[in-house]
Amino acid sequence: MGAGSWGTTFAKVLGDAAASHDAERIIRVWGRSPEVVADIAGHRNTKYLDDAVLPECITATTDPAEALEGAQLVVLAVPAQSLRGQLAAWGAHVPRDAVVLSLMKGLEIGTDKTMSEVIAELTGLPRRQIAVLSGPNLAMEIARSQPTGAVVACSDHETAQWIAESSTAPYFRPYMSTDVIGVEIGGIVKNVIALAVGMCEGKEMGDNTKATVITRGLAETTRLAIALGGDLTTMSGLAGLGDLVATCSSKLSRNHTAGRLLGQGLSVDEVGERMTQTAEGIKSAAVVLELAKRHGVDMPITAGVVAVLRGQLPVDQLEPLLLARQLKSEGD
Amino acid sequence: MGAGSWGTTFAKVLGDAAASHDAERIIRVWGRSPEVVADIAGHRNTKYLDDAVLPECITATTDPAEALEGAQLVVLAVPAQSLRGQLAAWGAHVPRDAVVLSLMKGLEIGTDKTMSEVIAELTGLPRRQIAVLSGPNLAMEIARSQPTGAVVACSDHETAQWIAESSTAPYFRPYMSTDVIGVEIGGIVKNVIALAVGMCEGKEMGDNTKATVITRGLAETTRLAIALGGDLTTMSGLAGLGDLVATCSSKLSRNHTAGRLLGQGLSVDEVGERMTQTAEGIKSAAVVLELAKRHGVDMPITAGVVAVLRGQLPVDQLEPLLLARQLKSEGD
Repeated sequence: MGAGSWGTTFAKVLGDAAASHDAERIIRVWGRSPEVVADIAGHRNTKYLDDAVLPECITATTDPAEALEGAQLVVLAVPAQSLRGQLAAWGAHVPRDAVVLSLMKGLEIGTDKTMSEVIAELTGLPRRQIAVLSGPNLAMEIARSQPTGAVVACSDHETAQWIAESSTAPYFRPYMSTDVIGVEIGGIVKNVIALAVGMCEGKEMGDNTKATVITRGLAETTRLAIALGGDLTTMSGLAGLGDLVATCSSKLSRNHTAGRLLGQGLSVDEVGERMTQTAEGIKSAAVVLELAKRHGVDMPITAGVVAVLRGQLPVDQLEPLLLARQLKSEGD
Repeated sequence: MGAGSWGTTFAKVLGDAAASHDAERIIRVWGRSPEVVADIAGHRNTKYLDDAVLPECITATTDPAEALEGAQLVVLAVPAQSLRGQLAAWGAHVPRDAVVLSLMKGLEIGTDKTMSEVIAELTGLPRRQIAVLSGPNLAMEIARSQPTGAVVACSDHETAQWIAESSTAPYFRPYMSTDVIGVEIGGIVKNVIALAVGMCEGKEMGDNTKATVITRGLAETTRLAIALGGDLTTMSGLAGLGDLVATCSSKLSRNHTAGRLLGQGLSVDEVGERMTQTAEGIKSAAVVLELAKRHGVDMPITAGVVAVLRGQLPVDQLEPLLLARQLKSEGD
């Protein structure tokens, strides 16, 4: 459900996974745009994935009911803030015995709910049928079959295992986890940390500075995830560290790019004018900070990013602020 | 003790730290080369640090006894494999009540000992007087006062705190730890992982692949560190993750560069001819793998790097090998 770059790429992964096991599989992609759907029916998605060729077993439709009929696995890849409206429109067509897998990264503004929480609320499905997938997964690179890993998490280990087996392709290696909240928090906060790293780059700081912000950023992400019931090991893994490092290294990341422009001294409005799509981190930074405050978690980098975004802190004062804290033990 | 890029830069950090607290401090740098020592006496080290200016409180000498006389803190920054010989030559001049701080990263070939273990053996000092410092610390960037963090570890917390306080400069923020072995293992294995990441880059793999190798590489480093008595949190911190990310991002890293050349298909001998200094990871990969085997730790990325270095595995087969392992939970 969703024919953007990641939704289409994951359909390709599922198709290539089936082919590599000589298995038959029917994959139906739902998209809103008739043009994109027609393109996918011709085994391309040139709007999002250049000239990548999609497997023969993929079809596409603009009718959600048709896409969902009899589905065993329902993969959701719509914009995070649109999920509630989408599920209200076609959630009733999700088969009651299907497993729903979220590829989305974001907190719903207003409710502070994660995507799996919104899915549980609107579909009424038990948590054992709701899973999430995350990791160092820049869609364009996967569409080019460049090797990567990912984490699929579900409270039910066997469901996670079934999804992992179903999506293992020669270039795509999923690991399993039962830490749903940890995987989701990793994917949300990394966009905020990527803004901070981008700001350092915009100010022409070096690799030490960026590595320090990534490390301390992951430390504050970990504190938040643990406060919400997540595991430390998830944050050291592909959905925490892996996703963060890929995002902060990539020239393709919108959050990273937005941070660079802010670091060069542009205002948030000027950055918005320069970029065609809004960076998710700009939307979610304040929501993450609010969530952290409610759980008594100290997140100085996120707080710094929010202050810069609100115009309360000149970007030049961001790093000294991060380094000026009281001397203490690293794990504290 | 040691007037290379990192030794000289850390002397500058100590000088700037004192100045920022309006404290008096005498810093004596020892180096073998009369030219470099004369340069440092003129407050430069142009051979290693371009045009960076050193603080006035720094002097330099080629006489180890003169450098060590009455020292409270003895900072060691000589090449890892030369440490035993150096300490045999002038270790007797280290004051018995001094704290010895190692900036070195490496395992001694033959004994598999870490630098702090070699120091303890040759000086006979108790472990509470031996500390190590590590982190995302590319010397040239610190010499330019670009902000970064580091970890100083000592079995005695108060000693770690004293060193951290003594080396806190406006651009340099040390955290404290008591996990000496974890900090040392992080600094050693990262050179091997940087070779693997460089190989992926040489083969023009994308940011997902590199982030996956970094993440899984840190996971195997962590398994080794824990088997040797280290802490998980150290590996998620500046001396584990931070140092690894900085090294794998930097165009300045020799290990990263050597990996890129190997990835492009050059042999180890050809890489050696291209580079003026040997990459530490090429020397230590086999030693790390041996240590891991002795402790029953599985290190597939290190094993892959060793196989490539020995000419037993074509570099093209490295990544499929890394991704081909049995499906399992991420933390296992």
